Amino acid sequence: MSLFQKHQPVLTKAIEALHARTFYAAFPEQPSPSVYGETADADGQAKFKNQLGNKFAELKQTNPVGWGGQEESPYTQEPLGISYPLFSVNSLIENSMKAFTPWRKTSVESRAEILIESLDRARKRFFEIAYATMHTTGQGYMMAFQASGPHAADRALEAIAAGFEELNRVPSHAIWDKPMGKFNIQLNKEWRPVPKGISVVIGCSTFPTWNSVTGIYGSLMTGNTVIVKPHPGAVLPIAIFVAEIQNVLAENNLDPNVCQLAVDTFDKMITKELAEHPDVKLIDFTGNSAFGSYLEALPGKTVFTEKTGVNSVIIDSVDDVDKAAANLAFSVNLYSGQMCTAPQNFYIPETGIDSPNGKISFDDFAQKFIGQINGLVENPKAGPFVLGAVQNKKTSERVTEAEKMPGKVLLKSHAIENPQFKSARTATPVVIELDASEKEIYSKELFGPIALLIKTKNTDQSIALAQEMALNHGAISCGAYTTKADVHEKIADAMAMAATPVSFNLTGGIYMNQNAAFSDFHVTGGNPAGNASFTNPEYVTKRFTWVGHREPVKN
Amino acid sequence: MSLFQKHQPVLTKAIEALHARTFYAAFPEQPSPSVYGETADADGQAKFKNQLGNKFAELKQTNPVGWGGQEESPYTQEPLGISYPLFSVNSLIENSMKAFTPWRKTSVESRAEILIESLDRARKRFFEIAYATMHTTGQGYMMAFQASGPHAADRALEAIAAGFEELNRVPSHAIWDKPMGKFNIQLNKEWRPVPKGISVVIGCSTFPTWNSVTGIYGSLMTGNTVIVKPHPGAVLPIAIFVAEIQNVLAENNLDPNVCQLAVDTFDKMITKELAEHPDVKLIDFTGNSAFGSYLEALPGKTVFTEKTGVNSVIIDSVDDVDKAAANLAFSVNLYSGQMCTAPQNFYIPETGIDSPNGKISFDDFAQKFIGQINGLVENPKAGPFVLGAVQNKKTSERVTEAEKMPGKVLLKSHAIENPQFKSARTATPVVIELDASEKEIYSKELFGPIALLIKTKNTDQSIALAQEMALNHGAISCGAYTTKADVHEKIADAMAMAATPVSFNLTGGIYMNQNAAFSDFHVTGGNPAGNASFTNPEYVTKRFTWVGHREPVKN
Repeated sequence: MSLFQKHQPVLTKAIEALHARTFYAAFPEQPSPSVYGETADADGQAKFKNQLGNKFAELKQTNPVGWGGQEESPYTQEPLGISYPLFSVNSLIENSMKAFTPWRKTSVESRAEILIESLDRARKRFFEIAYATMHTTGQGYMMAFQASGPHAADRALEAIAAGFEELNRVPSHAIWDKPMGKFNIQLNKEWRPVPKGISVVIGCSTFPTWNSVTGIYGSLMTGNTVIVKPHPGAVLPIAIFVAEIQNVLAENNLDPNVCQLAVDTFDKMITKELAEHPDVKLIDFTGNSAFGSYLEALPGKTVFTEKTGVNSVIIDSVDDVDKAAANLAFSVNLYSGQMCTAPQNFYIPETGIDSPNGKISFDDFAQKFIGQINGLVENPKAGPFVLGAVQNKKTSERVTEAEKMPGKVLLKSHAIENPQFKSARTATPVVIELDASEKEIYSKELFGPIALLIKTKNTDQSIALAQEMALNHGAISCGAYTTKADVHEKIADAMAMAATPVSFNLTGGIYMNQNAAFSDFHVTGGNPAGNASFTNPEYVTKRFTWVGHREPVKN
Repeated sequence: MSLFQKHQPVLTKAIEALHARTFYAAFPEQPSPSVYGETADADGQAKFKNQLGNKFAELKQTNPVGWGGQEESPYTQEPLGISYPLFSVNSLIENSMKAFTPWRKTSVESRAEILIESLDRARKRFFEIAYATMHTTGQGYMMAFQASGPHAADRALEAIAAGFEELNRVPSHAIWDKPMGKFNIQLNKEWRPVPKGISVVIGCSTFPTWNSVTGIYGSLMTGNTVIVKPHPGAVLPIAIFVAEIQNVLAENNLDPNVCQLAVDTFDKMITKELAEHPDVKLIDFTGNSAFGSYLEALPGKTVFTEKTGVNSVIIDSVDDVDKAAANLAFSVNLYSGQMCTAPQNFYIPETGIDSPNGKISFDDFAQKFIGQINGLVENPKAGPFVLGAVQNKKTSERVTEAEKMPGKVLLKSHAIENPQFKSARTATPVVIELDASEKEIYSKELFGPIALLIKTKNTDQSIALAQEMALNHGAISCGAYTTKADVHEKIADAMAMAATPVSFNLTGGIYMNQNAAFSDFHVTGGNPAGNASFTNPEYVTKRFTWVGHREPVKN
């Protein structure tokens, strides 16, 4: 492979897209045979099935201390039986240190080429990754394909592009020529982007590739070595990415330990030992707030977090109430509310919602919303596939507990049958009515298919509450419906000050849960939901340091 | 004033310079009558003298709780007698909050224009600022003029330029047009750079403007309000800058409290109360490591620090040993070693230094170095002006104590007479010989005119020690002398990995202590000497958050 020739065009396009923030996708999101090949789906499924019950033998890491794996399918509620090589933290660190200098001395162009090539290899395995994702996260087939495959690869490419651009921001050399009156002082100056060291990327159970590849590729692009520590419940999807990265590294005579997989098991987690190791300089984390805040406070580390939040929807006025209710119902149903961008708190004025046909009362809106949820979950051709399965038993328990909270249960959760998987762990949304005064109930993330309709005095109170939730408890997304320009700007300003992006007046096939690479910043980094953002300049600049040397020009 | 017309050309040049990193200075560094006016120096000195013993009445901040001030001249060792309005932390915060929204809603272009205009006003007061700097910091006249005047203003302009560029990095609007097969989804997207809130800039006693204006202007440019908390021993220089910022704000019908001065006194310091206030989101700090590390650990704050470090010089081989020794002697003498970039540890092989005329022994080099120091300090036309005065009694005591340390005192410190100021607190450099094994002695910053000549086994050990010092104790600068390409690269790589810039083979009128705006990053942020860098993109991007809103395009 001729380095930095094959993939330069896509990198150039990606950098342009990052600036323009218009639509761009390098990896087609439809699992279409015409794009990915006639047998790609069947082949991927077969490969996934062959992996079940077997060792994952693709990694180039040697001398494991043992093998282990505890993944379980939310669709079958059976163990996958896949085992992965296990390594001690010390050997992972030692291998990473050994691989570091050759990697940091590999040119920026070659690193970009190698990394994009690895995405191209992963592309050939998107279907296999999709099935692996379904049977670890519980995502429906379509989401599993898109989120773990093309959307993740686009996010990874975005991180490569952002890194490439930042690494080229300062010239490698310049002559500094200072007039001193009778003579000039001339210095040769040079600048080096110095990677920080070992990067640990800690995965989550619901989006094992989408939430991890940005950190992995961001760190690798900027010359750091990476240790990927997946969630013990969702290893296979990201293991495939790591295997492909190692393949391309080896083909280019580089140490595959530049990117290692560090699997652990629930009974012997290695995350803290890894994170606290003095040689680990960078940490990427997606998960709960307590652990994220612990990581953020570790001294001497640069830490990128996506934690939890309370996402709000402010409903003031609508053009078409049924379309609004349908859109929001889909957002709540999608992957059973297990997206970090799913809405939870819906603020509706007690006086109702303005519409071209007059006021829609709180109760009328609630009924329409519930009707839309029921319409979707009861449709056997849509419900099971939109909802997918519940990744974690605790989420199912949380849904059951939600029905016992103070507040009026407007819709109970129930299991639905999945035609393909009789044992799927499913839960339809629970909808609860609360008064704005019951703040202690709705001031926390209730992860899963739980929707709270909160009766407010008016839209001003709705805005104030949405802002307060974001400022105090974090928020990753916000929905808003208003037909009034002044209210629109009031919401836009208030939520901007709470560092929360707002999706206004969504109807049809676009949802507040979705964040597109090259255009939407995912998490802003400005509220307690996380300190990092996919992909702003800081997301990559914090992974290296500019160092400038200088010397007089020889005459 | 027509906003964003008057100063646009200088801003454009500054942004270009930031990218090119070639020589650029917007403010001429020579205190020349032809540039600054025939009477500028005399007028500035007169204004400074008139201020002595009086209230500083230029600020537009109202209702002080009292007046106070404890500045003392290192040249006269007498109080300046200037008093400043004092305010409670609560009233400072309240005023800052009130000023915040109009300021953040002021356009980026207008903010840039206002801020550059304020630098232009400060320019007219550079001489007054110079005398104020001399008589608070002890700097010599020339350094006081350059560092607190044109060099500080250039650094401020650099922060404005970097901020302006980053605020324009993401488009304010874009149409996102996604093909969905039979139709397109079209979204209007908009992005807002949202300032973080109140910014507190904590000054130091040695460089009251140079080390503070970057934070002040960086925060203001990105839409934050600023509270400037100077060191109680060095208020007047930065007070003049703040007064001019307030003047331009008021002329543009903006609240002068956008930038407040928060003077305190040694007996009642308000720094912690300010820093810990929940509404304070940004903190800039220059000073000791203990306080800097305390600030860095404050939860929920974005903190920019420049702390202490141990700066090394690696001497391997030289073209001209006398020129090298002269250059290093000047670096040690300059402002009596009170620069954060001054060298402290000089590593010299026990086998001597290679030169075109053969080996120069450790002892011979030491004698040449001492000879150059003595030649400078004993020259009445140079010594007093290069050394200036010692800002703090503790620094004088540290010099005296250094002579009692283990190690061989090669040169004792003594006071020299300043022809203009008989009572000046002065101290010439102490030079001590140590063995590389005496690491506990040289592994810390010994602030002031203290030079340690450390005998190493060879240059490899010199490099290893310089790297170790930087990694473990921080370093802001490094000097190196070598005529060998392989050693050159070994040093460049080793120190880059310790995030320390190296000045190679300096001779003549350029010194490792100097860092030029628009070209040299000051502090890298990558070792314990500080977490921020003047001015890399992070220095401004961390002061605001990108938030994107979106809405379907109406058909």
